[in-house]
Amino acid sequence: MIKKNNIDIEFILVEPSHPGNIGACARAIKNMGFKKLALVNPRKKINEEAFHRAKGAKDILENAVIFDSFDLAINEKNLILATSARKRTIQWPTYFVDNISDEIKSQMKSEMIKTGIVFGREDNGLSNEELQKCHYHLIIPANEEYSSLNLSHALQIVAFEIRKIIFDDEINKIEVRDVVSNQENEKLLEHLMEVLKKIDFYDPKSSKQVKTRIDRLIKKSRLDKMEMGILRGFLSKIIDFEK
Amino acid sequence: MIKKNNIDIEFILVEPSHPGNIGACARAIKNMGFKKLALVNPRKKINEEAFHRAKGAKDILENAVIFDSFDLAINEKNLILATSARKRTIQWPTYFVDNISDEIKSQMKSEMIKTGIVFGREDNGLSNEELQKCHYHLIIPANEEYSSLNLSHALQIVAFEIRKIIFDDEINKIEVRDVVSNQENEKLLEHLMEVLKKIDFYDPKSSKQVKTRIDRLIKKSRLDKMEMGILRGFLSKIIDFEK
Repeated sequence: MIKKNNIDIEFILVEPSHPGNIGACARAIKNMGFKKLALVNPRKKINEEAFHRAKGAKDILENAVIFDSFDLAINEKNLILATSARKRTIQWPTYFVDNISDEIKSQMKSEMIKTGIVFGREDNGLSNEELQKCHYHLIIPANEEYSSLNLSHALQIVAFEIRKIIFDDEINKIEVRDVVSNQENEKLLEHLMEVLKKIDFYDPKSSKQVKTRIDRLIKKSRLDKMEMGILRGFLSKIIDFEK
Repeated sequence: MIKKNNIDIEFILVEPSHPGNIGACARAIKNMGFKKLALVNPRKKINEEAFHRAKGAKDILENAVIFDSFDLAINEKNLILATSARKRTIQWPTYFVDNISDEIKSQMKSEMIKTGIVFGREDNGLSNEELQKCHYHLIIPANEEYSSLNLSHALQIVAFEIRKIIFDDEINKIEVRDVVSNQENEKLLEHLMEVLKKIDFYDPKSSKQVKTRIDRLIKKSRLDKMEMGILRGFLSKIIDFEK
């Protein structure tokens, strides 16, 4: 990312099946001026075919980070986008890939923000659970009658669109806040669930929906460190009071 | 191309080497809602690998048209765009693929216009001669240090951008003229060369540049049928006069 060296955007492939696809993704990443590739539990090892398809992007493959779980791959991220070619039944904040909001664009361009862009399995995409761990969903506009893109082609389009964002200096310099990491959000959610249970508001057996909705709310809020401090302090206070 | 059935856009691959790439191109074409694929002298036959990579776009492969020469592939076209990832030394009217002019966009959307979008060989692209037979060059913005995209990935980006054009009804309805076909332009060029030679203006041995420049001028002019009639009449008249 010439002149944009401190922008931190990682492409995360979840359980890819075909080493050839991984290689083609590496090439697309480098072609568009990016550097970082992460793999969550690849079903096959990076092999000769992967290097063959990567062509001049062998460095991207060599430096790819491999994670044992999706959670580990996204833990450090401040902004997580999940790519999908089709509309999901699940309601979640969603953008078309060529129509991302200016706020998210400036976050991607900030050195303070680690962005992860997540791609699902070739055969059946991302699970609902994985999708719900992401802040936003990105949809690639496609033929309704045949919307399933090849993995590396989907990545190519997303990387092409994000390249435009990174190199577009016209985007309003919306102030970028020090948005917390995903891990901190998860801790807040757990803390909140604990409190809700304690005050008998929430029964984990009967009401999984409640947790999902609160999770979504937290992610949508894009909390900064100050806000997180206030909320965590507030929750601790409730529990202290109940004792 | 749902509701856009009469828009005529064909993706033309010149001497592709890898059947797998052809299959991946077919899939990308269908994913983006297009239908037409043409191949100029493919170096290998469409085989099992091509069908495997095409996945749900086997119909696009089955209906692919195969031409023996580049000229035959573009003869009937009214608008021909050549794709390239890098800037050429050759000066030619050029657009970035995400910044095509409104005039060209409305031509693509017109039922009167047959558009051909040309992609070069995996190893060494299009020859200068082939490039000069196209009306415009399209550049895919890419990493300057590694700008060579995989064939099907380049096609994916171009198809994605053209899909936006086709489905964007905001584009000004600039009046679309009945632009002549490439064949008619070639005939005009030959006719003009013949006249120039006859009046001793042009020596084919010493001045290949002249022909190239006139060729470029003709293509840039985007002549309609009426204009073509006038020019051809004018040229015939000169020869009659010289007799």
